[in-house]
Amino acid sequence: MPALECVPNLSEGRRPEVVARLAAAASAPGVRLLDVASDPDHNRCVLTLAGEPEALIAGLLALYERALAEIDLRRHEGVHPRLGAVDVVPFVPLGDTPMATAVAAARRLASEVARRYDLPVYLYEDAASRPERRSLATIRRGGFEALDGKLAEPRWAPDHGPARRHPSAGATVIGARFFLIACNAMLDTADAAVARAVAAAVRESGGGLPAVRALGFYLPSRGCAQVSMNLVDFRRTSLARMLARVRDEAAARGARVVAGEIVGLLPQQAALDVVKETLQLPALGAGGLLEERLRSTAPASC
Amino acid sequence: MPALECVPNLSEGRRPEVVARLAAAASAPGVRLLDVASDPDHNRCVLTLAGEPEALIAGLLALYERALAEIDLRRHEGVHPRLGAVDVVPFVPLGDTPMATAVAAARRLASEVARRYDLPVYLYEDAASRPERRSLATIRRGGFEALDGKLAEPRWAPDHGPARRHPSAGATVIGARFFLIACNAMLDTADAAVARAVAAAVRESGGGLPAVRALGFYLPSRGCAQVSMNLVDFRRTSLARMLARVRDEAAARGARVVAGEIVGLLPQQAALDVVKETLQLPALGAGGLLEERLRSTAPASC
Repeated sequence: MPALECVPNLSEGRRPEVVARLAAAASAPGVRLLDVASDPDHNRCVLTLAGEPEALIAGLLALYERALAEIDLRRHEGVHPRLGAVDVVPFVPLGDTPMATAVAAARRLASEVARRYDLPVYLYEDAASRPERRSLATIRRGGFEALDGKLAEPRWAPDHGPARRHPSAGATVIGARFFLIACNAMLDTADAAVARAVAAAVRESGGGLPAVRALGFYLPSRGCAQVSMNLVDFRRTSLARMLARVRDEAAARGARVVAGEIVGLLPQQAALDVVKETLQLPALGAGGLLEERLRSTAPASC
Repeated sequence: MPALECVPNLSEGRRPEVVARLAAAASAPGVRLLDVASDPDHNRCVLTLAGEPEALIAGLLALYERALAEIDLRRHEGVHPRLGAVDVVPFVPLGDTPMATAVAAARRLASEVARRYDLPVYLYEDAASRPERRSLATIRRGGFEALDGKLAEPRWAPDHGPARRHPSAGATVIGARFFLIACNAMLDTADAAVARAVAAAVRESGGGLPAVRALGFYLPSRGCAQVSMNLVDFRRTSLARMLARVRDEAAARGARVVAGEIVGLLPQQAALDVVKETLQLPALGAGGLLEERLRSTAPASC
């Protein structure tokens, strides 16, 4: 298993050919491209990469170069908050890799990105330089449009790079964190206010569920409202519990969830937790799956 | 991946040392022992084996020999129906293996078991010799105690072996089938009648859910009633739907499910179906899991 996963979020979700070029740029030697998800309403794409730190950093530097050439935030519209062309780049430890490895990769990438591309960089979560910068939502507040003012405040001086917005690419946020599950729920209403109210009730900051962040949007391309969630620690709140709460809060406002959606990939344990909870199987682990058992008992190949 | 799974069910679930010897006997060269599950109230154990047909048949012949030496049904008590020491031996095709391969293995084992151990053998499900013998429940009706009368009826002449009960080992049922999920639900009542009523409402033969078989028991060792189910085709009824129905039927009778249990192993697709249904994710497949994607994109080893 590679040491790290990396899940860059970029501000392009409408031009498939650009998304393809971005994905190709990131796929440096030694980098495995596991998934590409893009959304026209969010106008955003999420790449899932895996590899060793050096290979990933090389791929990401190529990705920044391509994104700066392709994306101009002055002409970017989308419902999702963002402050940069390469909006967020989190590194996630895989398997037994310590978080320190992800933090080191984030910091190396951050300094190199600032130097090469003259881009302001904020470090977040486990790679943050100070406690008030752990939260992505806080760093991103106001978005690209408010960046000039923010960068001018001494307490929001970037961790690397110039204290002024890159004209077309804004700023970028790089960090290290545990697995995050990006999960959306589509409602049977076109009223964004319902989605926003559900999001406010479900998220941790509103007194809802631990480890849940949520926003409410209207999606023009689908004609419906969406509760868009990040579950930042599926060990604290399970996906099943989060979705059940969304259903309840939506029902309380006369709406129904018509479909769920996972953006990117789901860690197997998070999926098994849903099965455990739904079927009340306290003992279920990956070893309870036939295919896992077949793999773990496979005779060594010759 | 091996060609076949085989899931022998034996009438021993109280003496762990005997279960261990049975599992060891089945583990012939080329046979992989994936799981051992035993239950003292059912007084029954379930082994999950995988391998190529020849290796499995060799392991199973050794298993029959050991079981005949260790198990005497004249002194066997348990809540689960059974008619033999080696009660049921189903072969299940894995991966792209055709059902015909499982049927052929079942038939070869059946004729060899009858010849070597002088044991009456019925063939069932896809290996059945006639339509009325497809159903295990029909073959097993009356259990070990009623076997002498049953074997004497011309229409219940065994497929192989003598038309008289083996004194200590009864008879055995061998067959080929799709994956079966054995799933139990423990209730918060000691009243077996509640479990039986729930079972009758849930199972296909009672007008309940397709592909569901169910019985109700009282479990002395746990002091509670249990709905014991076989889901014989998780593509027709999902595990999530089956358990939800059990919960509803139990609630209608004033009882609650306090825990579920899977006996043996769960096919990954059945687990993913629970996640898809619970989270309303129509598009989720194995490829949506991070670990699967890491495996499927792994560079070829040198």
